[in-house]
Amino acid sequence: MQSIKFKDKRLFYLDQTKLPQKELWIECKNLDNAYYAIKSLKVRGAPLIGVFAAYAIYIHLKNISSVKNLKNSFSFLKSCRPTAVNLSWALECLEARFQKIRNESLDLIRKETLKEAQKIHRQDIELCENMAKNGLSLIRKGDSILTHCNSGVLATSGIGTALGVIHRAKEAYKDITVYVDETRPLLQGSRLTAWELMKKKIKAYLICDNMAAALMDQRRINKIFLGADRIAANGDTANKIGTYNLAILAKYHKIPFYVVAPTSTFDLKVKNGHDIAIEERRADEVKNILGQLQIAPDKIKAKNPAFDITPNKLITAIVSDKGIIYPPFRKNIAKIIK
Amino acid sequence: MQSIKFKDKRLFYLDQTKLPQKELWIECKNLDNAYYAIKSLKVRGAPLIGVFAAYAIYIHLKNISSVKNLKNSFSFLKSCRPTAVNLSWALECLEARFQKIRNESLDLIRKETLKEAQKIHRQDIELCENMAKNGLSLIRKGDSILTHCNSGVLATSGIGTALGVIHRAKEAYKDITVYVDETRPLLQGSRLTAWELMKKKIKAYLICDNMAAALMDQRRINKIFLGADRIAANGDTANKIGTYNLAILAKYHKIPFYVVAPTSTFDLKVKNGHDIAIEERRADEVKNILGQLQIAPDKIKAKNPAFDITPNKLITAIVSDKGIIYPPFRKNIAKIIK
Repeated sequence: MQSIKFKDKRLFYLDQTKLPQKELWIECKNLDNAYYAIKSLKVRGAPLIGVFAAYAIYIHLKNISSVKNLKNSFSFLKSCRPTAVNLSWALECLEARFQKIRNESLDLIRKETLKEAQKIHRQDIELCENMAKNGLSLIRKGDSILTHCNSGVLATSGIGTALGVIHRAKEAYKDITVYVDETRPLLQGSRLTAWELMKKKIKAYLICDNMAAALMDQRRINKIFLGADRIAANGDTANKIGTYNLAILAKYHKIPFYVVAPTSTFDLKVKNGHDIAIEERRADEVKNILGQLQIAPDKIKAKNPAFDITPNKLITAIVSDKGIIYPPFRKNIAKIIK
Repeated sequence: MQSIKFKDKRLFYLDQTKLPQKELWIECKNLDNAYYAIKSLKVRGAPLIGVFAAYAIYIHLKNISSVKNLKNSFSFLKSCRPTAVNLSWALECLEARFQKIRNESLDLIRKETLKEAQKIHRQDIELCENMAKNGLSLIRKGDSILTHCNSGVLATSGIGTALGVIHRAKEAYKDITVYVDETRPLLQGSRLTAWELMKKKIKAYLICDNMAAALMDQRRINKIFLGADRIAANGDTANKIGTYNLAILAKYHKIPFYVVAPTSTFDLKVKNGHDIAIEERRADEVKNILGQLQIAPDKIKAKNPAFDITPNKLITAIVSDKGIIYPPFRKNIAKIIK
């Protein structure tokens, strides 16, 4: 299972909007391709879009004969999705490298950019393994875990963040059960996480987003693991819409709530969650499911925030590649994340 | 706007599974028609299925030449959906009447059954008006109200329960805003409530079920009104799946949470919510949206409880046709509901 491939200096991605029905690989041939693939969620997941964007800059460099406008290309890609910090983080790594070699030959700039992209890629795989190792200590045989959206192979270039922990727990303990909520409007839970869980033969149930509380009340769920798109210095977490819902329900039912995210998801410049920009997407995504089934009258307006903010007080711990971070978050994040 | 019509001794229903795309009226010609219409949610809403079932018994009486098996017909219809009490309540009203006249001529039994069905129908309309009048006192100009599922014209034979209050509030105060969540899996919010709100020209926004907490945090919602399928003697309330979710979120954000239901929805034989049977529906309703769009891998299992139980401690007040009931619920329900 993979979500992107870089082979013979060409970049390919699995079109996630076609899953689970079709496993369709598409080549990303230029910057516009990359922008559109991320914008339309064909490539998605905070860590993955960072790695993908880095390779996309290399592909772009293959297409151009001068780096004069490269700064604009970085800005263009960064503007694509505002909430996940990994996209700008990866592009800033590349930009920093570029600043040092901007006067070198285009050929050398290409080579160095590729090296940097491959480093980000390798790092992402490694960070996933470290998160899985750290998170595993929080899981026990027989656990019944709720997850939200997709934070697995399809959200990273490695084994995943929260779903990576679950994948490794399955290997270690065998009998775990996973509940995955569908994650409206774009159904990353039912389409993507369910697909991954079936591929890995993990015992799993799909639920609608509004069923979580009833299942918690029935003691069918005893832990929650999910990913993050941006974590502020105080631990407030931006993640897929519905995360804040679940955090409140978990608190009410006294169920531990774990966020799993790599170092690159922390944004220490942001003091708290209210300073994180929330992407508002088209109303049509709510009214017309996957662009294929209209479920509401034409005339009604819809809200479509793609993310919400979970305040640190609702989070039991954050599992990072560098260790498990417990409250008080501001102090402990500062200690672990440089 | 109407959801059923009884005209020239014939019974018609608006097929709610076709809304909002098509307004299709279908004649209910026999008991099997009625059973299927309720089971498949073509006719739905706790009060409405009571009224509809009463007329369906009359239609059935027109088709038969002996009342020997009428008891089985009552049981057959009652078994159709177990959670909403109004269905069995209405059928029990008819059955009680039938017991008194069972030895009379079939013609008289038909006439008396029709009278009883029409009485239930008239009562339902009147109960709705009384609930709306009582509920109106809880709404202020400028309120921004969240509702769930459908509790309007399409859920009753009158103006509705919770949505009836909202309809009347719109007439009284003009500037109210309604948020309606889509109510997965069967989308009664996006298909039915949104349709009613547009017909009544009420300012409204559709949201996904998992967006409620984020909007509450932004202070966009200041009250919640929704219906009920069965209320226990202590006020614990069975209602459409997702209601319990919202009740917890409302408590966390200190937002008043109002249940609106007629006397016939109270089931004083049931001491508390855990004694209410919860209908589990087909997994396919979750995996395949409206039978038209598959959103999950074939192999994954799904849970599909149609209702959940909201404990009385999360309910601010219950608006009934006989007045607004505040805690302590066991005492105050016993006082108001005979």
